[in-house]
Amino acid sequence: KMLGRVLCTVLFMGALPSPAELSQGHISVVLLGATGDLAKKYLWQGLFQLYLDQVSSGHSFTFHGAALTALEPGQRLMFDVLKKLACPPDESPDRCAVLKDQFLKLSQYHQLKTAENYTALNREIERLLRQEELREAGRIFYFSVPPFAYTEIARHINSSCRPPAGAWLRVVLEKPFGHDLQSAQQLAAELKSFFREEEMYRVDHYLGKQAVAHILPFRDQNRQFLDPIWNRHHVERVEIVLKETVDAKGRTSFYEQYGVIRDVLQNHLTEALMFLTMELPANVSRAEEVLQCKLQAFQSLRRLEKSSAVLGQYQTYASQVQEELQKPQGYISTTPTFAGVLIHSDSLRWEGVPFLLASGKALDERVGYVRVLFKNRAYCAQSEALRDAGHSQCKAKQIIFYIGHGVLNTPAVLVSRNLFRPVMPQGSWREVATGSDLRLFGQALSDYYVYSPVKEREAYSVLISSIYHGRKDFFITTENLLASWGFWTPLLDSISHQPLRLYPGGAENQHLLDFEMVSGEVAFAVAEPAELLNPSKQMPSDYKTIQSTFRQSPLVSAWSEDLISQLASDMEEAASRSVARRGQFHLALSGGSSPVVLFQRLARHHYAFPWKHTHVWLVDERCVPLTDTESNFFRLHKHLLQSVRVPYFNVHPMPVHLNQRLCVEEDRGTELYAKEIAALVANASFDLVLLGMGTDGHTASLFPQSESGLGGAQTVVLTESPVKPHQRMSFSLALINKARQVFVLVLGRGKHDITTLVSRAGHQPRKWPISGVSPSSGQLVWYVDYEALLG
Amino acid sequence: KMLGRVLCTVLFMGALPSPAELSQGHISVVLLGATGDLAKKYLWQGLFQLYLDQVSSGHSFTFHGAALTALEPGQRLMFDVLKKLACPPDESPDRCAVLKDQFLKLSQYHQLKTAENYTALNREIERLLRQEELREAGRIFYFSVPPFAYTEIARHINSSCRPPAGAWLRVVLEKPFGHDLQSAQQLAAELKSFFREEEMYRVDHYLGKQAVAHILPFRDQNRQFLDPIWNRHHVERVEIVLKETVDAKGRTSFYEQYGVIRDVLQNHLTEALMFLTMELPANVSRAEEVLQCKLQAFQSLRRLEKSSAVLGQYQTYASQVQEELQKPQGYISTTPTFAGVLIHSDSLRWEGVPFLLASGKALDERVGYVRVLFKNRAYCAQSEALRDAGHSQCKAKQIIFYIGHGVLNTPAVLVSRNLFRPVMPQGSWREVATGSDLRLFGQALSDYYVYSPVKEREAYSVLISSIYHGRKDFFITTENLLASWGFWTPLLDSISHQPLRLYPGGAENQHLLDFEMVSGEVAFAVAEPAELLNPSKQMPSDYKTIQSTFRQSPLVSAWSEDLISQLASDMEEAASRSVARRGQFHLALSGGSSPVVLFQRLARHHYAFPWKHTHVWLVDERCVPLTDTESNFFRLHKHLLQSVRVPYFNVHPMPVHLNQRLCVEEDRGTELYAKEIAALVANASFDLVLLGMGTDGHTASLFPQSESGLGGAQTVVLTESPVKPHQRMSFSLALINKARQVFVLVLGRGKHDITTLVSRAGHQPRKWPISGVSPSSGQLVWYVDYEALLG
Repeated sequence: KMLGRVLCTVLFMGALPSPAELSQGHISVVLLGATGDLAKKYLWQGLFQLYLDQVSSGHSFTFHGAALTALEPGQRLMFDVLKKLACPPDESPDRCAVLKDQFLKLSQYHQLKTAENYTALNREIERLLRQEELREAGRIFYFSVPPFAYTEIARHINSSCRPPAGAWLRVVLEKPFGHDLQSAQQLAAELKSFFREEEMYRVDHYLGKQAVAHILPFRDQNRQFLDPIWNRHHVERVEIVLKETVDAKGRTSFYEQYGVIRDVLQNHLTEALMFLTMELPANVSRAEEVLQCKLQAFQSLRRLEKSSAVLGQYQTYASQVQEELQKPQGYISTTPTFAGVLIHSDSLRWEGVPFLLASGKALDERVGYVRVLFKNRAYCAQSEALRDAGHSQCKAKQIIFYIGHGVLNTPAVLVSRNLFRPVMPQGSWREVATGSDLRLFGQALSDYYVYSPVKEREAYSVLISSIYHGRKDFFITTENLLASWGFWTPLLDSISHQPLRLYPGGAENQHLLDFEMVSGEVAFAVAEPAELLNPSKQMPSDYKTIQSTFRQSPLVSAWSEDLISQLASDMEEAASRSVARRGQFHLALSGGSSPVVLFQRLARHHYAFPWKHTHVWLVDERCVPLTDTESNFFRLHKHLLQSVRVPYFNVHPMPVHLNQRLCVEEDRGTELYAKEIAALVANASFDLVLLGMGTDGHTASLFPQSESGLGGAQTVVLTESPVKPHQRMSFSLALINKARQVFVLVLGRGKHDITTLVSRAGHQPRKWPISGVSPSSGQLVWYVDYEALLG
Repeated sequence: KMLGRVLCTVLFMGALPSPAELSQGHISVVLLGATGDLAKKYLWQGLFQLYLDQVSSGHSFTFHGAALTALEPGQRLMFDVLKKLACPPDESPDRCAVLKDQFLKLSQYHQLKTAENYTALNREIERLLRQEELREAGRIFYFSVPPFAYTEIARHINSSCRPPAGAWLRVVLEKPFGHDLQSAQQLAAELKSFFREEEMYRVDHYLGKQAVAHILPFRDQNRQFLDPIWNRHHVERVEIVLKETVDAKGRTSFYEQYGVIRDVLQNHLTEALMFLTMELPANVSRAEEVLQCKLQAFQSLRRLEKSSAVLGQYQTYASQVQEELQKPQGYISTTPTFAGVLIHSDSLRWEGVPFLLASGKALDERVGYVRVLFKNRAYCAQSEALRDAGHSQCKAKQIIFYIGHGVLNTPAVLVSRNLFRPVMPQGSWREVATGSDLRLFGQALSDYYVYSPVKEREAYSVLISSIYHGRKDFFITTENLLASWGFWTPLLDSISHQPLRLYPGGAENQHLLDFEMVSGEVAFAVAEPAELLNPSKQMPSDYKTIQSTFRQSPLVSAWSEDLISQLASDMEEAASRSVARRGQFHLALSGGSSPVVLFQRLARHHYAFPWKHTHVWLVDERCVPLTDTESNFFRLHKHLLQSVRVPYFNVHPMPVHLNQRLCVEEDRGTELYAKEIAALVANASFDLVLLGMGTDGHTASLFPQSESGLGGAQTVVLTESPVKPHQRMSFSLALINKARQVFVLVLGRGKHDITTLVSRAGHQPRKWPISGVSPSSGQLVWYVDYEALLG
């Protein structure tokens, strides 16, 4: 009955819908958590806005608030909220008042707790539809509830609240969507058992922020200007920042579990990052194309390590947690409330460009922005005074998507005037006069073209409208979500016991949270002010590398991470010295799994490594094609060569694959490699040979009791491994022992026994080939980690 | 007699020299060009300063002015100059007046024109020495004369004015030292026939500028701070700048022959560049070590091309030349009065760092500086207002050697306070208070540590003192000079007919001379204001691409630059299509010079090119090792492969070098390549084959009347080229014609005749191999530039 009356009223008031429009059908919106904070603050207002916008669309609506609270108190709570709904400033007060009245009448409260409650809700919806003789268009279920409740609710909806065939179901989910990759996968799997992908709308409300939502359209509409400059050759750095002045007080029960990275970086800032870095699809409004490009962009991101981030915690956080969560005195929280993260993409477009993501609570200002700073490539011939006046090429060139708050206090898009005058959609963005003497990002506001939205819209109202229109491009798909967690989880794991820098909060922070990039890593710029919060005591980093000897040769030992980092530095030093003296560096690398971490470290942290003058050789190889994932060369290529710039001519894989067959004697691959060495390496004396050691004491591919390679003068030999693939090609001991330097890397507890045996063994190469490594005039250094050394 | 009196006077006045000092002997200084501009302005004053400084050193002096003018008028002219000599402000006026009087008495004028004049001068010196019973310490001949007079004078000095054994000869030479490498070599060879290297002191008065002279000592004394940051990882750019407000009026007879590059960049700015870029010798005060490091630094400089420079000429220059050199009305000068040059070093330390050298006349201010700008690696977490107050890491980091004039109007060394507090020699440099609100290089003066010389010294007085002390590190050795000319001459040659941008002069220049770096090149930042001075008329850029057919296949034609850009885009599109459909792209590329520009364009502008899924093959190869610069693969590697990320496994050079020999039939390289193609390329049908066309109608390495490759089914063949290197390996027509797409690129006027012939020819592969290109089921497209097409 009620619904019928309202429909009449609607028909009565202007904007008469045509019968065709009328036939669009009915939409039921169910807001779960109808009396919660988010609902109060944004969602009801967003739903009301939807009603205002769509009342004449031909759809009819009912709004069902739901919560665990019993009917009567729940109803009271909910209508208290609804009564406070505001009319938007651009709506005529009269029309708005009438529509608000209707909205209230179209809204009901339901207690949704048990399976029966859901069945009842479904019956109620069906009853209303039957009663008003309405065709059902669809149902929206908006989950504004804690994530632990998701599965239960999803199950009920799926089993008892699905609309009939021909009508759609849209469930709207609010973050957090898990806590790390595993939990996100689990949640996703559960949801998938109840809903189809296209039925789920995961909200990241940043995608509804007008400045964020405009990044892709901006890139699309300004292709002519951006095509030549939107790449590593022109972009100096990108900053994606969300600063808050508030702290976590009152929300620590949530915050303590999540922290700033899960709360802000993994979702909001990452989405902005994707909009910036992804390749532009031909059609930016096709959600599927956008998604594919986004997923590709995720693929290109370089893996984060603990040195990719700086972390802080405001000083009063711990006591707030103590108080709110009843923790004991002296409780230490390891939850970061500030994070600065350096991200690199390995795509051709972005290789080398630093993307800085930063967010924190209790900072000195509230502001959000995405800032693309271009390289300064100009030289200005006139004096600075003259230069400052106009729009000189020597001024900074920037594009800023200003999300809101801050000195501007409005969403905006800013483009440096010395860059280009952007194309902006006239209906929705307008140019703003910049007469004021505001300064922004180091420049006068008048140095920018500034655009702000014609109509400022609340993110949630944008998103609710998109749900209504079934526009999925404003939402996070499962693939997107898992890609993001896949990217962030390694960092979250590695920093779970990292020290946090304490900061006082607000302007008091001064330079405490400033950070700097140093060869691909970040570190706070100001030295430690002594109140570091260091929660866990047994990180290897407090151990010092010890030096001693092993088998009469120098020994470097440390926890594996530090050991690898020391070895990589020593290798760089050897390389630089060699290049300085002889113009080149001949490096022979072993297969096996231990060197992989080393390769990665060399690829990512040693920008000064003289790769251009380095020749890379293989110490040993399995008799498989080079493109086989089992191949030592393939592994070397994957983890090192494809990331650095060794000239093609300087790469020397072993010729195990000749005449379409593998390691056949008559193809004389060993002879071929020996000749190549003889032709290029003076005296066949490598500058550095890196070896490993097997649990059976083998090294290179020289196995105990081997027929060849352990004695004699042959330099490259074919050997047999006891494990598959059996056939190998390898440097001989004779060749290894001609090297100027030999480093042996031994990692892991599994190597402890053999390490102990070998430490006491004499020269017994037939028993333990590694014991035959003894450079005739070169230097031998052992790099053995604590686990291998001490067990 | 005169000399004796003076010596007594000297003994009489304070600072009594000990007998040991007295025995230092006598020095005769001969200033050739004693009445010229330089002598008037600086040299006599410098000699007087030397006398003031060294009168008590134990040396005695005589000063011989010389010129072509006859004795009496010459004498008059010279003493007019000497009478005006000023006492330096830090000298007591009494002592100075006495010493000036002595200086005048020790000075004589000589006409030096004929051989006899020189013999007479020598006799006169000998007579004086005998008369005063003085031992001769040495003679200084200062050449302040035009360079054409050098050889003649040098011959005379060598044959009649050399001091006796045991005394030294020092000849001081003023630039220009030649006009390009060849003339400099010639001049150097001539001088070498008269003087030993250690006898020659080539002046670059910039080396006497205090800020320039302090670059090396600064680097040496601040090694602890600079070692980690003085490299490509930390330096953003370097600017070396000398701006003048004066123009060339009155000096055009000199200037018109030299221009700004020879006048300022080749010498002054290059020397500063070397001080910055050279590796630091262990001992910076040992001239020989410094020289070796400098020469090494020259070796690392990347060759300059015409696109390395922007050039300008102030508007009134041409009329000044007309007037002063009596040139006809409408005379066009091609001499640049402004130049901005981008220099790169390929050293490991500096690879990729732009060094910008700029100088010009008729600019808006007079100033000279060397500015090292460091990369901005910090993110500052606090708002800008807070940041601006202190010495934030987010402010610019710079080190500036301020040569003089400009707003500071004094030599200075400035170091950003957020960098480090430099070590400065206390006796000679003092810290300056920076209370003023001056701004310099974008920052308040108070953001720097600022040091200026305790005592400001005229460059010439520094240099004359160095000559006296025999300190050669302030002078340009022959090797150094030739290295510099060797570096600059290719640019000078290539720009001799380049367009110059006209500029009005002074503040009016506005942004006209600002320039920008674009992928390793420079260009003016502001679009051409239509008054370009363009000595050669044929700029192709305003023509449009036309499309039509050629030999019944599609033809794309344009001016070469547009054509290349179209071809590159078409290739990217073909690649993307192929990868989308088949997961990979098999691309076969030809050798020759035309594709180089294409390779560079692909490397620099096509970030979305799917290199990771592209296989690169060679259409043909010269029988030379792959690392030979003649090799097609080497060129491909240099211009394309080293800049993109084609996986190692996907690169397929032709096996021309097997068993340490080149293209020997029995090594079966052709068979090997054919097998590789068969194994990887479905149907041996390449996705794209790129060909060129020779002036004889050859394509790939298939030459007219060739025995192989033009007919038959063999896919890869050995062929003979009429030009060196004769032996080649090549795709056959059969293989080419299997391709899905074949693009033929033809560039340049030199190809016009063959293009015309081939356009009319039928299928005559034995006569014109290119006419045999006719894909059986694929598409053929011709890319022919206007010059080749239209002549």
